[in-house]
Amino acid sequence: MYPTKPDDFQVFDTTLRDGAQQEGIRLTVPDRLRIAGLLDDLGVDFIEGGWPGANPNDTAFFQAARDGLRLRRATLVAFGATRRAGSSAAADPLTQALVEAGTEVVCLVAKAHDRHVRQALKTTLEENLAMITDTVTHLRALGKRVFVDCEHFFNGYLDNRDYALEVVRACARAGAEVVVLCDTNGGMLPGQVAQIVAQVLPHAPKVGVHCHNDSGCAVANTMAAVEAGASHVQGTVNGYGERTGNADLTTIVANLELKFGWSLLPAGQLRDLTRVAHAVAEIANQTPFPRQPYVGRSAFAHKAGLHASAIKVEADLYQHIDPDLVGNGMRMLISDMAGRASIQIKAGQLGHDLEDRRLAAKVADRIKAREAAGYSYEAADASFDLIVREQLGTRPRFFAVTNWRVFHTGNDDLAQATLRIKFGQEAATAHVGEGNGPVNALDKALRAGLAARYPMVDQFELTDYRVRLLDASHGTDAITRVLIDTAYQGLSWTTVGVGGNIIEASWEALVDAVDYGLMSHLPSEP
Amino acid sequence: MYPTKPDDFQVFDTTLRDGAQQEGIRLTVPDRLRIAGLLDDLGVDFIEGGWPGANPNDTAFFQAARDGLRLRRATLVAFGATRRAGSSAAADPLTQALVEAGTEVVCLVAKAHDRHVRQALKTTLEENLAMITDTVTHLRALGKRVFVDCEHFFNGYLDNRDYALEVVRACARAGAEVVVLCDTNGGMLPGQVAQIVAQVLPHAPKVGVHCHNDSGCAVANTMAAVEAGASHVQGTVNGYGERTGNADLTTIVANLELKFGWSLLPAGQLRDLTRVAHAVAEIANQTPFPRQPYVGRSAFAHKAGLHASAIKVEADLYQHIDPDLVGNGMRMLISDMAGRASIQIKAGQLGHDLEDRRLAAKVADRIKAREAAGYSYEAADASFDLIVREQLGTRPRFFAVTNWRVFHTGNDDLAQATLRIKFGQEAATAHVGEGNGPVNALDKALRAGLAARYPMVDQFELTDYRVRLLDASHGTDAITRVLIDTAYQGLSWTTVGVGGNIIEASWEALVDAVDYGLMSHLPSEP
Repeated sequence: MYPTKPDDFQVFDTTLRDGAQQEGIRLTVPDRLRIAGLLDDLGVDFIEGGWPGANPNDTAFFQAARDGLRLRRATLVAFGATRRAGSSAAADPLTQALVEAGTEVVCLVAKAHDRHVRQALKTTLEENLAMITDTVTHLRALGKRVFVDCEHFFNGYLDNRDYALEVVRACARAGAEVVVLCDTNGGMLPGQVAQIVAQVLPHAPKVGVHCHNDSGCAVANTMAAVEAGASHVQGTVNGYGERTGNADLTTIVANLELKFGWSLLPAGQLRDLTRVAHAVAEIANQTPFPRQPYVGRSAFAHKAGLHASAIKVEADLYQHIDPDLVGNGMRMLISDMAGRASIQIKAGQLGHDLEDRRLAAKVADRIKAREAAGYSYEAADASFDLIVREQLGTRPRFFAVTNWRVFHTGNDDLAQATLRIKFGQEAATAHVGEGNGPVNALDKALRAGLAARYPMVDQFELTDYRVRLLDASHGTDAITRVLIDTAYQGLSWTTVGVGGNIIEASWEALVDAVDYGLMSHLPSEP
Repeated sequence: MYPTKPDDFQVFDTTLRDGAQQEGIRLTVPDRLRIAGLLDDLGVDFIEGGWPGANPNDTAFFQAARDGLRLRRATLVAFGATRRAGSSAAADPLTQALVEAGTEVVCLVAKAHDRHVRQALKTTLEENLAMITDTVTHLRALGKRVFVDCEHFFNGYLDNRDYALEVVRACARAGAEVVVLCDTNGGMLPGQVAQIVAQVLPHAPKVGVHCHNDSGCAVANTMAAVEAGASHVQGTVNGYGERTGNADLTTIVANLELKFGWSLLPAGQLRDLTRVAHAVAEIANQTPFPRQPYVGRSAFAHKAGLHASAIKVEADLYQHIDPDLVGNGMRMLISDMAGRASIQIKAGQLGHDLEDRRLAAKVADRIKAREAAGYSYEAADASFDLIVREQLGTRPRFFAVTNWRVFHTGNDDLAQATLRIKFGQEAATAHVGEGNGPVNALDKALRAGLAARYPMVDQFELTDYRVRLLDASHGTDAITRVLIDTAYQGLSWTTVGVGGNIIEASWEALVDAVDYGLMSHLPSEP
């Protein structure tokens, strides 16, 4: 049913160039070097590093790569444009910068849509062909391998098929190794892409594809191009890119490996997919998208309910692949419909033995009572873990807060919190915190109280904070639920608190967050 | 190149049922009623509301819908399963609950994969067919229109083609109007989906499709099914759903309207797509995904650089569609160009004339400045209305609060707020409120201060209250956004507040809520 893998199939990553065009992403040179290392570990064939000469940061990356980046498997690629109109490649400073980047492979962008040649380049169709021929020939003569990204290719093909094919043939004649058809505006659908790729194949030594996600079909368009005969795919980790992003290479590689059954990455490396995707997100300072295929936090999360026991026995009935294959894991979401079976599975995933039915029932009763009171453990794994330990009698107690109060004045935007904290049988001591709101002030007071005993707490970072009012019909009188994400040394955890108001609820989640963090990072319990 | 639209094409939304399976989404009955209203405004054909009898919240929704939901165009659908094995539909309490939900259309889920029948249902293939026949026949005899979701259909078809088709024929023979092929595990690719849909077509009166996004192809799979002849598509707003989510109906509708050129929604309603998608996100308390096709905040955002002027002049060269068509806007990431058109549309919907371009630009500037500071007006129509009036010089001022303060002690669960209030030139008076939290205390103090002058305020009911932290990397230090829903005499309105902490933000939204309520209900302005 699926095509067999061409021997010369290529996976080309452009996270560092096209991915960095995304709103909110700014990659420093060290960021880029780390991402390149991760991509090389994963096993992509090509890493496009940037556009040398176009901006100083990109030029500096290639300098730094020459000085210190040792790739084991991947080939680094420099990106650039065809020479300017009315000039020569040898005299073009940007072409020169491209040569000086010192990569074995360069990827040129060329115009393939007649309207863009006339209206954006403001030159003739003939001169555009000359620019391609001249630039490719020049770089080939210097010993470079040359790939060409044909910009707006699909729109160009639909508007002026002959000219678009003329561009492909110019690339091929001048010695380009791969002609990459780009859906630059991202508006294509898979049927169109497949048809056009098939029609271009006879005109190029090798056809590649580069898609954007504006119709929500970037992955499918890429798969359709491959089914039609393309043997080079471009994309970015996590689909980063301008507007709706580029084709998500994470998903494409997993689809090609697990659906088509192709071997693309070095043996076993597909299991690194989730780690690499999340590490790149962290470096790019992007919150991972929970619903991302294969690697998302929710990608194998089930709201179990009645079918928990069935999933436990026959997980493959309910999942399109085994999540272990991509280094992800199944998660049972503990929701108000959950029973003992899903709690056993989840506790097992956290390393607790709840096979004892009586114990499991005791934990389940406790969870259900808490859920009835408004708690939600779907996301709050850390608070769930603490509850299981509470029921098993293994929850450590690092500190106790004997009382606290907060004072806030509307007009000066400053809140003050005071609290008394005790360690074991020692006398309680008082601490104060000030912040721009009551919860921030309490957080600061708690950190002040813990600083001397547990200095690591000062490094716990609150990375997200979500609030939901539960019994909405009561308005500001309702029960409040707070979820807090905390991070420290590469580990992140989520806790939940519930209370009659935001302060009580936040306080509870804060205390759980600190307790769980201490428990996970201290060499032994107190 | 594209198929023509079948006359009986159907758009079926399951945000309220399958969408609510997403990790982190919990919809109350009022949430569901509001979302149903938005979907009806947008113009979908069917709204699946939930599974009556399976849990109390779903049952309560159908009761509330019977009591007060008046849909102008859409048909409400109740979801349920085929009767239990070894029973009869007439005797099955869940089938009975489905009937009692009182909808004209029911959508049944039936097993279509032989392994699921044996291993999950633990019954025979014959009994499963009997369950389908009996349940469909029973519901048809009661006058219901019946759709059947064939669960795990594609995997079932690949494993046991004959049985999967037998299930389709059983549905058809018993009188099902639509047989919906479900990619329940979400692992299919477009080529497979198209082939299988084409092979099923001769066996069913009408074929529908229901996809999940586990291979990143849910939208493309749905489009492929439609190209192959399916004439009923299921999906959810923003692609909400379990694991990687359902097919994003927002993208599908836009693709069908703008790529295929089909007319699906009432004329002009596609321009409401972005607003509806964001309003549903707010109600579901989900951060909108910036890279979402068509409606995402970044979907038409360009890192302009050298081509800024070219994009301005020839935007169609760089965008797959005109963003106005879906109520979104182009954004240049250096110079923001978003907004005026959608602000004109929205102001028009609220009864203000903003056709004057200068006035519209003035309002747009104000909205943009507020949005840059963290405000969000997609759901907060009342605050939006107040801002438009502010710019038009027609916002009434009923009262002024000159200062306020809150005091809260952790151990006795009681907060006290004091404030001073002024009416026009009168002397300010002091008022106190006590509540179970700071915001509740402020709310009570404000009501106390307004009671003598505007007694109706005491009847304003706060029906929902949602909080979001905006700059998540700052933890409890971040900017807080609060949305408040208020109801009085059958009207309900939403206001927004933003501040350095929850109390400031809530206070602002509370004051807007009271102002808007007074403005809407007083016979004349003060």
